[in-house]
Amino acid sequence: MANNEEIQLAERPEGMPTKDTFRYVETEIPELKEGQVLIKSIYISVDPYMRGRMNDTKSYVPPYELDAPIAGGVVGQVSESKSDKFQKGDFVLGNLPWARYNAANPDNLQKVDPDLGPISTALGVLGMPGLTAYFGLIDIGEPKAGETVVVSGAAGAVGSTVVQIAKILDARVVGIAGSPKKLDYVKNTLGADEVVNYKEDDVAKALEKACPDGVDIYFDNVGGPVSDAVYPLLNAHARIPLCGSISSYNKKEDQGPRVHGFLVKSKAKMQGFIVGDYSDRFAEGKKQLSEWFKQDKLTFEENVVEGFEHVPDAFLGLFKGENLGKQLVKVADEE
Amino acid sequence: MANNEEIQLAERPEGMPTKDTFRYVETEIPELKEGQVLIKSIYISVDPYMRGRMNDTKSYVPPYELDAPIAGGVVGQVSESKSDKFQKGDFVLGNLPWARYNAANPDNLQKVDPDLGPISTALGVLGMPGLTAYFGLIDIGEPKAGETVVVSGAAGAVGSTVVQIAKILDARVVGIAGSPKKLDYVKNTLGADEVVNYKEDDVAKALEKACPDGVDIYFDNVGGPVSDAVYPLLNAHARIPLCGSISSYNKKEDQGPRVHGFLVKSKAKMQGFIVGDYSDRFAEGKKQLSEWFKQDKLTFEENVVEGFEHVPDAFLGLFKGENLGKQLVKVADEE
Repeated sequence: MANNEEIQLAERPEGMPTKDTFRYVETEIPELKEGQVLIKSIYISVDPYMRGRMNDTKSYVPPYELDAPIAGGVVGQVSESKSDKFQKGDFVLGNLPWARYNAANPDNLQKVDPDLGPISTALGVLGMPGLTAYFGLIDIGEPKAGETVVVSGAAGAVGSTVVQIAKILDARVVGIAGSPKKLDYVKNTLGADEVVNYKEDDVAKALEKACPDGVDIYFDNVGGPVSDAVYPLLNAHARIPLCGSISSYNKKEDQGPRVHGFLVKSKAKMQGFIVGDYSDRFAEGKKQLSEWFKQDKLTFEENVVEGFEHVPDAFLGLFKGENLGKQLVKVADEE
Repeated sequence: MANNEEIQLAERPEGMPTKDTFRYVETEIPELKEGQVLIKSIYISVDPYMRGRMNDTKSYVPPYELDAPIAGGVVGQVSESKSDKFQKGDFVLGNLPWARYNAANPDNLQKVDPDLGPISTALGVLGMPGLTAYFGLIDIGEPKAGETVVVSGAAGAVGSTVVQIAKILDARVVGIAGSPKKLDYVKNTLGADEVVNYKEDDVAKALEKACPDGVDIYFDNVGGPVSDAVYPLLNAHARIPLCGSISSYNKKEDQGPRVHGFLVKSKAKMQGFIVGDYSDRFAEGKKQLSEWFKQDKLTFEENVVEGFEHVPDAFLGLFKGENLGKQLVKVADEE
C-alpha cells in the first residue's frame, strides 16, 4: 500500500519548465537502516538554482537525474530514529528528495533550533539565502560606509537580506525590483534609499538618477538587461558578487553587451560564488544574522504555499517575478 | 622658427581611427622653468589602451583633449636641465606628449638605468607591459603548479610575458594568437604547451582540445569572441585577470554571450585592473622581472618603427593584429 509520494524529473525542460517537467509517483515509506532517521517533510524550499540542475550540463552541482526525485532544502521532523544523534520530534534541515517522507543519514542533516525563530527560517534568513546574502556582500562586496550598493532582485529572499545588511553597514542602497508592491516593501520595510522598477522605468536612466555618485557594489541576483544597465555606472574598483542569473536560467542563448570593457575601465571585480564556498564559516554567519534578527534590524518575508501537490506551481512561480521574500511549500504540520 | 613638432588629437574617431584622427603641428622647443628638464624623445610607445582615451567617456584615465597632443609612455634623454635631480644625458621614462621635445617636471619622470638592459625595455618587459603581466597573473591569477593558464594576445607585449611567467611557475600554458608566425613564436620561443589560432581554428573546439583539464586562469588581453569561447571551459574557482579588451575598443556596440551564468557556474572571478593599481609594488615587480631576464628565463620582442612621422601608422597597426611583442617608434638616436 502506497503511503509515501515523491516528485520526479520527468523530462529536461527546454526553456521554461512546465507541469510536464514533473511527475508525481506513489512510493512506500522507506524501511530504516541502522543509524538512519525517518524525516517527515514540513517545509520544502523551491529555489531558482534548481532550474540549472534540470539541464544536463557541467555546473557546481551535478544535474538532477531523469526519472529520479528532484531534491533541495527541506525542513522536517524526525518521526522515527535508529540513530543516537536525533530523537523523534527533532527538527532538522537537509538537502533531501522532494518526498513526503525520507530516510536520511544524520551526517547529512543539521539540527534546527526552534528557539532561534520559526523553523522555516532555517530555509530563509537564517539559512542558505541569508548566508548567501551575508557572505556575498561582506566577503566579495566588502561594503564601506557611504558607498552605493545596488541590489537586483531586492525583494527576493537573498536580495532583501542584502538590502538590510548594507543599511546596517551604513551604505547607501538602491533596490531594483519589478512591481509597485515589491518596491514599497524594499523602500519602506527594508529601508532602501532609492528603488527602481525594472519593468516600468527606463532602467538605465532611473539607475543613473538613483546613483548620482556611481555604483561601488552591485549585488547581482538576476543578470540580463537589468545588469547591463548597471555596468556603465560602476565606480573605480567596484565589486560585483554574482550569486545567480535568474534571467538566463530558462534561455538557451543569453546575449547582451560584453562586460569586459566596463570591468577594465572601472578596474572592477565580478565574482561568481555559491554559499557552499563558505561552509567553514556558516557558524559565524548564522550567529551574526541571528543577532541582527533579535535586535529587530533584520526582517524577512515568506511566501508559503500549502500542500505537497503545489510544489511545481511554487517552483514555476519563481520565474514569474511575483515572489516577495522566500518561497516555501508547507507540506505537513509540525507534531 | 619652428624647431619642435607634436601630434594632436584632431577628431574623436568613430570606430577605427584613421589618419584624420591625428594632426601634426609645428611648435617651438619649450623654454624651461626653474626645476624643469628638457627631454628629447627617443622611443615613443603606442598602446591599445590609447584608443579608449580618444573617446569622450568615463574611464580610469581622462580622455585626451581635442586639439591637444596625445600622450603616453616615452623614453627620452635629458638635453637640458634646470633641476638637481637629472643631468644632461640621463635617460628617463615619463608619460609625455607625443612631441620631439618636452619640458617636464622631474617628479613625473623615472630614471632609466641602461645597465639593466636596452633603454627601450623600460617601455616593455621591464616597464608597464611587463608589470601588467606580472601583477595581473601573480596577484589576480594566483597560478599554482600544474594549473592550466590560457593567454589571449599571447604574442603581444603583455601576453608574451604572461606566457613565460606562467611557465616559470610550472603552469600548463595555452597561448592564443592570430598568425602562424605568432603561434610559432609563442610555442617555440616562449614555451607555451599548446597554441590556438583564433583566425583559422574553430576556437571553441581547438581550446577544448588544448585544455582537457579545463581552464584555471584566463589572462584576457582581448575580450570578444575569443573570450566567449573560453568561458564554457572554466574550472571551479577560475580566475580571469582582464587587462584590456582590444577587440572592443573600436566598436560602439560589443554584443556577445553574457558571462554571468558561466561565472556563477564556475564560481569564477573576473577582475579588471590597470598596472597603476600596483604602483606601490613596482619595485618588487621590476626586481623579479629583471632577475628572470638576467637568468635567460624571460625573453621579449620589439617591433620598432623608425621616425616621428610614423607614430600614427604604428598605432593603427596595433589593431590589425600584426604586432609581435612591444610596438615602439624610434624618433631620435641616443646621444
